[in-house]
Amino acid sequence: MSGLNETHDPSLTSWVESIGSSDFPIQNLPFGIFRRKASDEGFRGGVAIGDQIVDLQAVVAKSLLTGTALEAATAASASTLNDFMALGTEYWSALRLALSRALRTGAEQEPQFRDCLVPQSDAEYTLPCTIGDFTDFFASIHHATKASGVYRPDNPLPPNYKWIPICYHGRSSSIEVSGVSVHRPSGQVRPSKDQPPHLALSERLDHELELGFYVGSGNARGESVTIDEAENHVFGVSLLNDWSARDVQAWETRPLGPFLGKNFATTVSPWVTTMEALAPYRAAFSRAADDPSPLDYLTSAANSESGAIDICLEVLLQTEKMQRDGHPPERIGISNFVDCYWTLAQLVAHHTVNGCNLVPGDLLGSGTQSGPGREESGCMLELTSGGRNPVTLSNGETRGFLEDGDTVVFRGWCEREGATRIGFGELSNTIQTAHSLRDS
Amino acid sequence: MSGLNETHDPSLTSWVESIGSSDFPIQNLPFGIFRRKASDEGFRGGVAIGDQIVDLQAVVAKSLLTGTALEAATAASASTLNDFMALGTEYWSALRLALSRALRTGAEQEPQFRDCLVPQSDAEYTLPCTIGDFTDFFASIHHATKASGVYRPDNPLPPNYKWIPICYHGRSSSIEVSGVSVHRPSGQVRPSKDQPPHLALSERLDHELELGFYVGSGNARGESVTIDEAENHVFGVSLLNDWSARDVQAWETRPLGPFLGKNFATTVSPWVTTMEALAPYRAAFSRAADDPSPLDYLTSAANSESGAIDICLEVLLQTEKMQRDGHPPERIGISNFVDCYWTLAQLVAHHTVNGCNLVPGDLLGSGTQSGPGREESGCMLELTSGGRNPVTLSNGETRGFLEDGDTVVFRGWCEREGATRIGFGELSNTIQTAHSLRDS
Repeated sequence: MSGLNETHDPSLTSWVESIGSSDFPIQNLPFGIFRRKASDEGFRGGVAIGDQIVDLQAVVAKSLLTGTALEAATAASASTLNDFMALGTEYWSALRLALSRALRTGAEQEPQFRDCLVPQSDAEYTLPCTIGDFTDFFASIHHATKASGVYRPDNPLPPNYKWIPICYHGRSSSIEVSGVSVHRPSGQVRPSKDQPPHLALSERLDHELELGFYVGSGNARGESVTIDEAENHVFGVSLLNDWSARDVQAWETRPLGPFLGKNFATTVSPWVTTMEALAPYRAAFSRAADDPSPLDYLTSAANSESGAIDICLEVLLQTEKMQRDGHPPERIGISNFVDCYWTLAQLVAHHTVNGCNLVPGDLLGSGTQSGPGREESGCMLELTSGGRNPVTLSNGETRGFLEDGDTVVFRGWCEREGATRIGFGELSNTIQTAHSLRDS
Repeated sequence: MSGLNETHDPSLTSWVESIGSSDFPIQNLPFGIFRRKASDEGFRGGVAIGDQIVDLQAVVAKSLLTGTALEAATAASASTLNDFMALGTEYWSALRLALSRALRTGAEQEPQFRDCLVPQSDAEYTLPCTIGDFTDFFASIHHATKASGVYRPDNPLPPNYKWIPICYHGRSSSIEVSGVSVHRPSGQVRPSKDQPPHLALSERLDHELELGFYVGSGNARGESVTIDEAENHVFGVSLLNDWSARDVQAWETRPLGPFLGKNFATTVSPWVTTMEALAPYRAAFSRAADDPSPLDYLTSAANSESGAIDICLEVLLQTEKMQRDGHPPERIGISNFVDCYWTLAQLVAHHTVNGCNLVPGDLLGSGTQSGPGREESGCMLELTSGGRNPVTLSNGETRGFLEDGDTVVFRGWCEREGATRIGFGELSNTIQTAHSLRDS
């Protein structure tokens, strides 16, 4: 497996206590932007380990690093990660290596780094970076087939699906971090072709289980990124929920794509796991024998060998009643990014083949990640066949789509024989009781 | 006509010489970001008058303003107009009034303001602001009918067209100011259904004649902006060219909308004419008797009375040969924003009805503005019926779509009996000879 180095060694342990089965062992070291809860501190960069955060501003202030790692930490200690993301793989790697060495059991720098820890339980988060542009793909063929099949059972896949990594531009301003409330949107709906449309609160509110990849170093307008260069332009990955109002979306989408059905809210988990941390979980990319081979600009030996990534993804639901009754969130969907029809490198190569310029901090959503089965649904639209077959929860409640007070939780992790399990933390948001309509 | 004040008085003249029939009389006073050409000066805010720029940084440094106007000028003298745009109508108006008074014939402050002038011939421009999100509408029914009719002559308009101001999210990173070269993009095309798609340079490169409205003060996520509040959230308007590769667009657009066919380049003119400056050119909004009335959230008395704006728009083309031969750019299209199917206030009210948050500096494209006739085409797709009926220029050259070396120029202006003509300056870009393909 290429890309493995001492930071991935599964025998590494940290002097940070009680890491146990945490999502954040020393092999992970994801980046985020935090401050102490309800404080007037400035937001700043940090790295998660166990249940602690390494405060990079403190690390820089105490002069605990040197050289490239210090330059990287200085950039990463700002109030957004954009400058750090722009530095590129050499700097990201240098800082990861320096932190890995300083946090290992027996590290000489333990006392100094111990003074830089902030408990995650004391922290609050904001977006990891300023997101200039948000592109959302449609890269899971199982989602494309099942979700489109709700509307077009005989012919669910569009003719370009197996040729183009289909995507659209999303909205940046309404991207928020885990924990914020999501309001139920209003919009034009047209439940029947026999009636004119009207303005209403969405009755078909849905989540979409996605990964969000952050662009690291960008490319100039007019220049494309080859598939072999593509991953060097990606900093890392978070969980992403592309909240969707299916009734609004259905009426507005043709001819120019989804708009108000999507842009009221998108949420991301606070920690960004670097591409380097994902090295142990790479997998081969291949196509079914009767599928067309991707065009040359979407093909490379390295992509075929290890372009896919084995990332488990999970959706859990906790209704307001479950929360009151002390029931934990309950799994309603599970899938794996390894089943995605397109690889990350293909998404980047396609996005830039026309010379579109990517900018550090841009966000690329994978699209809803689903498997072929009902239990592998990344959204309610698939799980309940558009509300026709509601799902029954263990307490007897049913859901066709999401209701006010429902909390949707996403989790993601990588595990493989011979590697340490790493996780992405949690993305959790509760649906707010709707604002009153201004018009109806 | 509501919104008129002393700054619109057509009898006003300025002590700035040789304004003549310039786009920028004292009744206009548009804002932009400039510096002296090829200098190492910082970019900063300025206001156009005649062939000069009032350097707002100099105005602030010399303490020529007080109170609200000074606060506004301080914000507007920064390297982007975002902070100024965020201040809201009271501040924009105060600065306009103060500048109008200082620049009038006979103004006491003439000598001090004269020291703040920079000739436009010495200036270069950058984007007026950081554009967070770019939304592009499809608001001209003549464009929608004619452009869609190229592909679907029997049924050009989608069923939602007369109910929803259709739009999609565009790309922010590739928006550039007038003057930059536009490269011909590559992309997947599928000229025949009998053949698989392939990667190629676009052979159907097109302009789109649009207005670009900049958001001023924003709204919080979850809160909508009513139609009567809508225009208070808009700072002003520029010309916008939404460059399009029709062959790439045709193959990719279904199901999620245009992407690589659009996001390689969008260009805007450097000067932003404020909504206040447009007050004399307002017009009634109405619908044909057999068209549906817009839903309540898209309706108001003020919108019916004066929601439309009378803005003439013009496309000119200059081929490389014309340029060599000294032929000026030649008009190939003319239209008027007053013919738009939706008003600006309707676009804003629709955009936010789901609680989508607008941010100062966001850009709202009007969509291609066309009239019903062939000569009123805002793009080549309409003008040449998708290349089938090429246009013949006065020197005998023909064009189905744009060729390398072609320069596309947009102009826009407002004129009306009893008001002074104001213009938007020029938006001009030349198509660059294509980069070599990486793959074919």
